[in-house]
Amino acid sequence: MKISARNVLRGTVAAVKAGSVNAEIAVDLGSGDHLTAIVTLGSCTELGLEPGKPVVALVKAPWVIVMTGDSELKLSARNQLAGTVTAVETGAVNAEVVIALPGGAQVAAIITKEAVKELGLAPGVAATAVIKASHVVLGVPKA
Amino acid sequence: MKISARNVLRGTVAAVKAGSVNAEIAVDLGSGDHLTAIVTLGSCTELGLEPGKPVVALVKAPWVIVMTGDSELKLSARNQLAGTVTAVETGAVNAEVVIALPGGAQVAAIITKEAVKELGLAPGVAATAVIKASHVVLGVPKA
Amino acid sequence: MKISARNVLRGTVAAVKAGSVNAEIAVDLGSGDHLTAIVTLGSCTELGLEPGKPVVALVKAPWVIVMTGDSELKLSARNQLAGTVTAVETGAVNAEVVIALPGGAQVAAIITKEAVKELGLAPGVAATAVIKASHVVLGVPKA
Repeated sequence: MKISARNVLRGTVAAVKAGSVNAEIAVDLGSGDHLTAIVTLGSCTELGLEPGKPVVALVKAPWVIVMTGDSELKLSARNQLAGTVTAVETGAVNAEVVIALPGGAQVAAIITKEAVKELGLAPGVAATAVIKASHVVLGVPKA
Repeated sequence: MKISARNVLRGTVAAVKAGSVNAEIAVDLGSGDHLTAIVTLGSCTELGLEPGKPVVALVKAPWVIVMTGDSELKLSARNQLAGTVTAVETGAVNAEVVIALPGGAQVAAIITKEAVKELGLAPGVAATAVIKASHVVLGVPKA
Repeated sequence: MKISARNVLRGTVAAVKAGSVNAEIAVDLGSGDHLTAIVTLGSCTELGLEPGKPVVALVKAPWVIVMTGDSELKLSARNQLAGTVTAVETGAVNAEVVIALPGGAQVAAIITKEAVKELGLAPGVAATAVIKASHVVLGVPKA
């Protein structure tokens, strides 16, 4: 299978918290990095999500917010992955920014080129990828 | 009314499953295609969503993931609409890909042009549009 | 802190409705404009969200749908902010549209340039920014 989502992060289910419609899934990315995903309860059951299960977390690049500098705000977004910018490719309106995490995983974000300028994003700059739990798609290998 | 969302899919509510904050709505697109949407319980009540009600499902093109080939993954995304690519328009960073479903509906996705190359997307190629239920906005005609 | 989200709206928590996994937060933007956000219950607790608390609502521009004209549809999206277009910047595939709200806040949307044409978006045109509650990230100042 090939998939257009720029971010395909491999990990293991660490915890499952089921609600009435949705479930919150904690994913261990294996090198100190963690990701939380909200999926429907139906998906949770069909995919057999339970602690220890290997999963893939898919996140489209336009769903990632980039943050730099000391944060004077606490955010509701469950996922705030701190790393270092490794690449910036600029288009007419948007730009793609790649952030490498300490454990080796890379997260791509599509943001406006205006934001790239304001945040001073360039290779080597420290930056954090912010991802809402409801924006993460989980996948499991077919049995 | 005119709306910027590229994807405006007409259908009928097939089922409603209410939770404490959200509700999961199954929409029959009328030609074998189905779509699931998660909306707040408040919206569900205000829109009077119940089986048989005609609805419009709105999905912005950047919220659609495109997948090709035999899937060795099962995904948590409720909506995986298989069809055929009918158009690809490429920009500096992004590209718009249109997928026609068997029933005649069309789904547009905005993905990176890098993904278009990797997936070999071109008119005639089989592809699947993947859409999270929480990314679908529902609309009903005003009474 | 600097953040790539184009939309940073300041307000005050007006109401909190907790579910089993998520919570629905109503935010008063202070000049008649309101915004609803869905965050996980965990975030709600950690951020100490309760009526009267100052918050910042973050929304990425690609998550905003733009609507014009008399709406013959009622939408499930909790947030429908009516205002006036103040700027349109067009790229190869996408365009950034800025809508000023009556209270002075501005909302930026990234939509396809095709949609800009179809909706006749230009400075001075009345338009509504549509934002799903699950697409709003909330932030609070660190104690």
